[in-house]
Amino acid sequence: MKTFGKISGIAAALTVAALPAVAQDGAGAAPSAVPTDTVWILNTLLFLIGGFLVFFMAAGFAMLEAGLVRGKNVAMQCLKNMALFSIASVMYYLIGYNLMYPLGNWSIGTDETGGYLGAFATAVLEAVGIGADSVDDYGYASTGSDFFFQVMFCATTASIVSGALAERIKLWPFLIFITILTGIIYPIQASWKWGGGFLDTQFGFLDFAGSTVVHSVGGWAALAGALILGPRLGKYKDGRVHPMPGSNLTLATLGTFILWLGWFGFNGGSQLAMGSISDAADVSRIFVNTNAAAAAGALAALVLTQILYKKPDLTMVLNGALAGLVSITAEPLTPGMGWATIIGAVGGIIVVFAVPFLDKLKIDDVVGAIPVHLFCGIWGTIAVCITNPEASFSGQIISIVIVGAFVFVSSFVLWMILKAVTGIRVSADDEMLGLDKAELGMEAYPEFKS
Amino acid sequence: MKTFGKISGIAAALTVAALPAVAQDGAGAAPSAVPTDTVWILNTLLFLIGGFLVFFMAAGFAMLEAGLVRGKNVAMQCLKNMALFSIASVMYYLIGYNLMYPLGNWSIGTDETGGYLGAFATAVLEAVGIGADSVDDYGYASTGSDFFFQVMFCATTASIVSGALAERIKLWPFLIFITILTGIIYPIQASWKWGGGFLDTQFGFLDFAGSTVVHSVGGWAALAGALILGPRLGKYKDGRVHPMPGSNLTLATLGTFILWLGWFGFNGGSQLAMGSISDAADVSRIFVNTNAAAAAGALAALVLTQILYKKPDLTMVLNGALAGLVSITAEPLTPGMGWATIIGAVGGIIVVFAVPFLDKLKIDDVVGAIPVHLFCGIWGTIAVCITNPEASFSGQIISIVIVGAFVFVSSFVLWMILKAVTGIRVSADDEMLGLDKAELGMEAYPEFKS
Amino acid sequence: MKTFGKISGIAAALTVAALPAVAQDGAGAAPSAVPTDTVWILNTLLFLIGGFLVFFMAAGFAMLEAGLVRGKNVAMQCLKNMALFSIASVMYYLIGYNLMYPLGNWSIGTDETGGYLGAFATAVLEAVGIGADSVDDYGYASTGSDFFFQVMFCATTASIVSGALAERIKLWPFLIFITILTGIIYPIQASWKWGGGFLDTQFGFLDFAGSTVVHSVGGWAALAGALILGPRLGKYKDGRVHPMPGSNLTLATLGTFILWLGWFGFNGGSQLAMGSISDAADVSRIFVNTNAAAAAGALAALVLTQILYKKPDLTMVLNGALAGLVSITAEPLTPGMGWATIIGAVGGIIVVFAVPFLDKLKIDDVVGAIPVHLFCGIWGTIAVCITNPEASFSGQIISIVIVGAFVFVSSFVLWMILKAVTGIRVSADDEMLGLDKAELGMEAYPEFKS
Repeated sequence: MKTFGKISGIAAALTVAALPAVAQDGAGAAPSAVPTDTVWILNTLLFLIGGFLVFFMAAGFAMLEAGLVRGKNVAMQCLKNMALFSIASVMYYLIGYNLMYPLGNWSIGTDETGGYLGAFATAVLEAVGIGADSVDDYGYASTGSDFFFQVMFCATTASIVSGALAERIKLWPFLIFITILTGIIYPIQASWKWGGGFLDTQFGFLDFAGSTVVHSVGGWAALAGALILGPRLGKYKDGRVHPMPGSNLTLATLGTFILWLGWFGFNGGSQLAMGSISDAADVSRIFVNTNAAAAAGALAALVLTQILYKKPDLTMVLNGALAGLVSITAEPLTPGMGWATIIGAVGGIIVVFAVPFLDKLKIDDVVGAIPVHLFCGIWGTIAVCITNPEASFSGQIISIVIVGAFVFVSSFVLWMILKAVTGIRVSADDEMLGLDKAELGMEAYPEFKS
Repeated sequence: MKTFGKISGIAAALTVAALPAVAQDGAGAAPSAVPTDTVWILNTLLFLIGGFLVFFMAAGFAMLEAGLVRGKNVAMQCLKNMALFSIASVMYYLIGYNLMYPLGNWSIGTDETGGYLGAFATAVLEAVGIGADSVDDYGYASTGSDFFFQVMFCATTASIVSGALAERIKLWPFLIFITILTGIIYPIQASWKWGGGFLDTQFGFLDFAGSTVVHSVGGWAALAGALILGPRLGKYKDGRVHPMPGSNLTLATLGTFILWLGWFGFNGGSQLAMGSISDAADVSRIFVNTNAAAAAGALAALVLTQILYKKPDLTMVLNGALAGLVSITAEPLTPGMGWATIIGAVGGIIVVFAVPFLDKLKIDDVVGAIPVHLFCGIWGTIAVCITNPEASFSGQIISIVIVGAFVFVSSFVLWMILKAVTGIRVSADDEMLGLDKAELGMEAYPEFKS
Repeated sequence: MKTFGKISGIAAALTVAALPAVAQDGAGAAPSAVPTDTVWILNTLLFLIGGFLVFFMAAGFAMLEAGLVRGKNVAMQCLKNMALFSIASVMYYLIGYNLMYPLGNWSIGTDETGGYLGAFATAVLEAVGIGADSVDDYGYASTGSDFFFQVMFCATTASIVSGALAERIKLWPFLIFITILTGIIYPIQASWKWGGGFLDTQFGFLDFAGSTVVHSVGGWAALAGALILGPRLGKYKDGRVHPMPGSNLTLATLGTFILWLGWFGFNGGSQLAMGSISDAADVSRIFVNTNAAAAAGALAALVLTQILYKKPDLTMVLNGALAGLVSITAEPLTPGMGWATIIGAVGGIIVVFAVPFLDKLKIDDVVGAIPVHLFCGIWGTIAVCITNPEASFSGQIISIVIVGAFVFVSSFVLWMILKAVTGIRVSADDEMLGLDKAELGMEAYPEFKS
């Protein structure tokens, strides 16, 4: 036994305690099989634990973004993150959940062909005090726990957008975009895969926890917005890139650690089951691989920035960790730890090259969300083919393109409409003054002189 | 199945993996019933998970309050939060636990009539390596896990007080108050409901996770203190309210997210059981409703401050989320998501109006603890009647009044005694200088110029 | 029942819901015994939950250290913490895990005599979708969950070192040291106890969760480094100790709360099992004792600094809490809450005296890591004898000495080699300028004037 020493050193050694305990408590020999009610409870528990971990990613994004924007826009960034999460919670309840999981009630399409547009209805939880005979799906988990887990994914997608467009977008148009994104755009494309839609049935698309369905979607929406919104004033002036350093790298570091923590729930919970030995072992593999990929992404960025710039770059290391996490998200189960490490490291490398590449194109992404979530989301989705024999390269590519086209085009149109109707960019004066004073009339750090 | 697409996309589809795994591992067909030992373990696990989440709320309060006080009082606010949590831990062990849960050994009253004063004894955990025949209550959970969960509630009550009285109260008198609050005041009134006391038996009082028992209690204690202590110097001068902006809104935002996270444990754990399908589904409902109410509270405050002040107010949005959480705490189970959303939204609205209302009365509550925890605690306790047919309006109101009167009066007397004996307010010079330099001789941010 | 009142107040009373639910769902009367598959799953779940909590300690260390260094070294401290965790993750996979848990394949020694040097091989997880007949150890838990839990302990050891040596050590030599520490030094000595090595078999050494194996090891490595590295410039000048206050005590407080939270996983998970009533009750005891010791350590430091210095010291209170945690780590199970409180309080007292003691010796430990982790690690390891009758005083002392000698000497030699080959200390100019500007070319708080 791996921990023989540890166990033998304590009074209640496992071989003495756990197994006999069964006998001592039970009616004769303990059976081995997990009762089906217990399976259901354990699956439910996985969603609840996974869900609260993914919830905490909202705090991670808030701290990462608040740390990477300049001091004059910090309070606004906090407000946006609080608001977008709240909007996602409401919209996913009102529209998103059934649009994403129509359970056969497709508005367009069928389960056989794979659907294209889900059902329109608000989410309904199972009744209070329900028994096995009345639960929505006895082979699965409670609907409430499923909703709780899934709403957090919807909110995560929205969080990705806010960082890229920081420091110059108007609050309310941004929140309107988030409303449509979380209520309609995200759920529709997610239904194509996770709701049993056409990408799942016709193209055999594999995306375990959402490198494409969540991360690249946030990335495409952000890219469309960044293109229309344009760069921050002074960012690309006189043919040079002017760095605008984040105001609080400690909080950015904290945010990254929180995101890393939350990702165990994000990927591990996506196993969707923990009620059998097989599933529990798989969840464990996923935890380990997720950690390995994040570590490798951080180290790759650390070494690469040292080589390229002669100095390591903390923000690149942070984004490298996140890049590793996004990269392993499409397939955190089938790789061994070696492949997980490599897949994550490639993610870290991508980010180091992608950030200056975007700057070359004068696409201003304040926190590096597009490199991390879009580029590495694509990479992770392709990397499924390395270790999962069920994946087809063409199916992955086609699905990336279809999801990307749908989200980019619909986001682009939506941003253009918002631009035409309300405007999406604050005035140059407000931007120079900072959104905190201009739009909120308060400052995040009012006492500290800049 | 909701996640058909997701599952079908991974190698180990649930229908292939989970159910057959049972058969493959077990002796013939798997039984459905959860073994009673497993029930006990799962209940225990719920308390442990719920407990560590509620523990983390201590960090949430610390960050929220440290972010909302001025820079010169930040280190003191951190110290108070660390100290009050520690005091609560010790006092609940020494006195509180058995005072709250006398298990029939009432000092005044009986289980039949409902008790008025619990038992005096230190808490005792179950022995090491205990078996089913020796646990304190085989139908429930381990005593250790129960203590762990309950001590966190006691500490939460104390946390509420520290924010309201910040920036002018003396450290040691404050800590003496906390000692009595956590050791005596909180447990006595909590026994009236959760210990099976007279509010429970005679008035049918319903308070699922403590809108009254925890939150309003902290609020009443804070209100009594704020009245006696008086407002900060310069807060209400020349008939005007002078805003004293928080020094670090990023940390206040972080604190709010942490509190939101912890609340899943606070409300979810209060189901007190997770070992049946019914209980696991109920815990899931509670998680979802808790999230919905928080989101709605934040959005209500966002929209309302935009309308009232033409600018959204970040601190109101943060307090709006907390208001939603407090509001749903008395009954997070019976509402559907729609009612949870409405109950939370009303909480957010209450806060937006209550903060200036308190200012009008010249009651200086630094962080908005009284609006959030007292006003919304009352609202949440009344709102039980909306969705829970077992609640009686009169029983709720009477219980609110009895608990409020007991806590407010006993706190008021205690504050007055402390004021007479040691004084509770720092000198005007110390207040102007800041508690960090005056009482601690250190600063939270020594390098940053104010 | 403890929570009679609470339960009776909700619709689904436990006695009504949980037990009948079993009967209603099941085939006749529910059996009591936990099925062996369920035991395995619950043990696995304990490791996963414990593991993510210990993971989060990495964030706690990062915030604690970032808060306690001066502003000019904060970004570097964040980078170091992110990098060392990542390195530990990779090295433990490549070498550490099998070196620590050779499962009989000792390179030197045998299971009978107890081993001295483990096996050299990379870690291998169980296959995807594994069944009961193929898991590595059916009586235990999934290998993946075990690895996940153990890798976090390895990383924790590394985290301890970074704080002590902050503000003057060169990045890359530090990371090389961490590479050897996490890949070789830590796993070898850990194998002596937890891998079933000679300290376990020959000396009956008891160290439940690692007061010695983790904390003192980090402390010894830090002490060796601090001696060779020397104090920060100006710290001990003209025969006086010049305080260099931390730049952000709020983050230090947050870090302490996060560490406290993580410690529930650290100690609770070290029970290694949760699949029986006995184990679940023991985990509960551990949670409670861990909390009690931390609270007592904080309060002891609070009162003692008030007495000694007439002013309480926030950083001492934070370190007092951590000291309590380290002190209870070697034996969090057998004490009652009273002893846990005393053991923790002694830890808090040790720290208050040890910090100035180290300053007297001109050993410059920036964050107090040596008092907390080394001194209290030793105290905690000895304190096992108070409540655990299986502990022998001589066995504990001998083991402390052997582990200490091995780690201190090997670390000392390694630091000396690094000093000779690459140098380990930045130039005086770079130190005055700050590592952030000198080594990273960025600042943590670029906008805030110092």
